[in-house]
Amino acid sequence: MSDDELAAYRHSIDTVDAALVRLLAERFRITHAVGVHKAAHGMPPVDPVREQEQIDELRQLATDEGLDPDFCEKFVHFVMDEVIRNHVRIAESSS
Amino acid sequence: MSDDELAAYRHSIDTVDAALVRLLAERFRITHAVGVHKAAHGMPPVDPVREQEQIDELRQLATDEGLDPDFCEKFVHFVMDEVIRNHVRIAESSS
Repeated sequence: MSDDELAAYRHSIDTVDAALVRLLAERFRITHAVGVHKAAHGMPPVDPVREQEQIDELRQLATDEGLDPDFCEKFVHFVMDEVIRNHVRIAESSS
Repeated sequence: MSDDELAAYRHSIDTVDAALVRLLAERFRITHAVGVHKAAHGMPPVDPVREQEQIDELRQLATDEGLDPDFCEKFVHFVMDEVIRNHVRIAESSS
């Protein structure tokens, strides 16, 4: 691989990473709104049935897209754990 | 929040998650190609200078986008650790 080829790949990776960060920011904006409303209505921060449905669907999508479904599930848990921490924080600060 | 409002938020979350999984799949397609070429040319799987530059830039982007930069950095490490595991696997299977 020439330096030019490596540079081109790195440019693509940087583009994808920037899109990932922007989408994560958008996802946390949405879940923050959900967290505020759940806290206001005394709803629990976690809905295990919904969570399992999300994981199942994203594992299937990962498989279709050629992404390791186990890595995908680890990623989903990584994000959801942060969402739950944020929801608990919102619930505590509003109680 | 009505059930309709919650359903709308969940629809948005699902849309964002599907985009995240597709982008992660794309990212691993690119890094797989990089890993194959690095292994073929005996290059080390990790470039610490490049890695730190990526982290610094993505932390700044996260801050600009309202995403916790520490969470962003944890996410970047989460992805990079998987990339390095894959690169080591490629290097071992080609040696």
